[in-house]
Amino acid sequence: MIFSSRLIEEAVEAFSRLPGIGRKTALRLVLHLLKEAPEETHRLADAIRRMRDEIRFCRICYNVSDAEVCSICGNPARRHDIICVVENIRDVMAIENTQQYAGVYHVLGGVISPLAGVGPEDLTIEPLVQRVATGQVQEVIMAISPTVEGDTTIFYISGKLKAYPVKLTTIARGIAFGGELEYADEMTLARSLTNRLPLEKYMLSSQADPSPDT
Amino acid sequence: MIFSSRLIEEAVEAFSRLPGIGRKTALRLVLHLLKEAPEETHRLADAIRRMRDEIRFCRICYNVSDAEVCSICGNPARRHDIICVVENIRDVMAIENTQQYAGVYHVLGGVISPLAGVGPEDLTIEPLVQRVATGQVQEVIMAISPTVEGDTTIFYISGKLKAYPVKLTTIARGIAFGGELEYADEMTLARSLTNRLPLEKYMLSSQADPSPDT
Ligand SMILES: [Zn+2]
Ligand SMILES: [Zn+2]
Repeated sequence: MIFSSRLIEEAVEAFSRLPGIGRKTALRLVLHLLKEAPEETHRLADAIRRMRDEIRFCRICYNVSDAEVCSICGNPARRHDIICVVENIRDVMAIENTQQYAGVYHVLGGVISPLAGVGPEDLTIEPLVQRVATGQVQEVIMAISPTVEGDTTIFYISGKLKAYPVKLTTIARGIAFGGELEYADEMTLARSLTNRLPLEKYMLSSQADPSPDT
Repeated sequence: MIFSSRLIEEAVEAFSRLPGIGRKTALRLVLHLLKEAPEETHRLADAIRRMRDEIRFCRICYNVSDAEVCSICGNPARRHDIICVVENIRDVMAIENTQQYAGVYHVLGGVISPLAGVGPEDLTIEPLVQRVATGQVQEVIMAISPTVEGDTTIFYISGKLKAYPVKLTTIARGIAFGGELEYADEMTLARSLTNRLPLEKYMLSSQADPSPDT
């Protein structure tokens, strides 16, 4: 594409670095901003810069937060004795959208994946164990995508938590094995939370599964 | 959608004001930026803000420009005696991408549309007449979308330029009547520029067309 303006070229280039945005779409966005009042562009630029510079991670659950403790951990109306363990903040949002869950979260920051070089020490597993060790927690729900890496992570965490008198559950397998939790529809996700299983049952059902070929 | 962070909510809101970007896509973009280094976000925010604040319109042709005169009008290698009249800067980009045109441009800023409340005085028609009045212009090519409003605009401009010894042409009707010039493929656009018609021929062919129903 040929641009007669370096300013436009640089804005198109910056937009097209975003996932799913090609150069044609980027140009359309830039030309849209040029048509609108400058305040629209300022609003967008300021909102994304402020978001990136001011966002913090909750010191309790590692969810994104505007303050030291996130609005979920800081909400007295929620059940703080139930912790839902998820891979990332997208999963928190997906579960919050079901409006079916009244407990709190723990964001791992990923799953154990030797191939990707992610070990248990790269995740927030130790802080989770510390939360459970306080004795205030009744139940830990593993809401982790049912993949090989997800299962590895669930088994690793359950080993770490075995010493504590806490109920371990996983969300029901409404989601197909290998499926990504964050792409599940709200109904499936809500139902699989409601029908969550004690972890021993999950492990049994998991062993009964034919092992994946790869 | 429920957000536990106002910072994220505001960034999602700002992104989703862009055309073709829904709230799900906006959230995906925001979460992508959160994963990348802060410099990526700064780069995007700065590029779009600078583009919007520093962009100017060429005082000769009204194309977007980084300086008082755009890089096309300022290029001595181009033919300054041929002016291609277009509706908007997207059309300039579309024609530049064909790499078949060596003249200069004139960006009208739209077409005459009584329904949309756009009259000739809202467009840069008077500055175009002044450019032609200098006597330096041999040919004015009307590269305007073949719609009812486009035709109205072409006829209005041709009336204004009748007094001057300048050749008036339109791009060939390679593009279907009612089609948007900016969405034409490069080949069609290049060919319709090469096969451009003297305006009298266009008017004749236009009258022979069955009138549109609406
Ligand atoms: Zn929190
Ligand atoms: Zn110019």
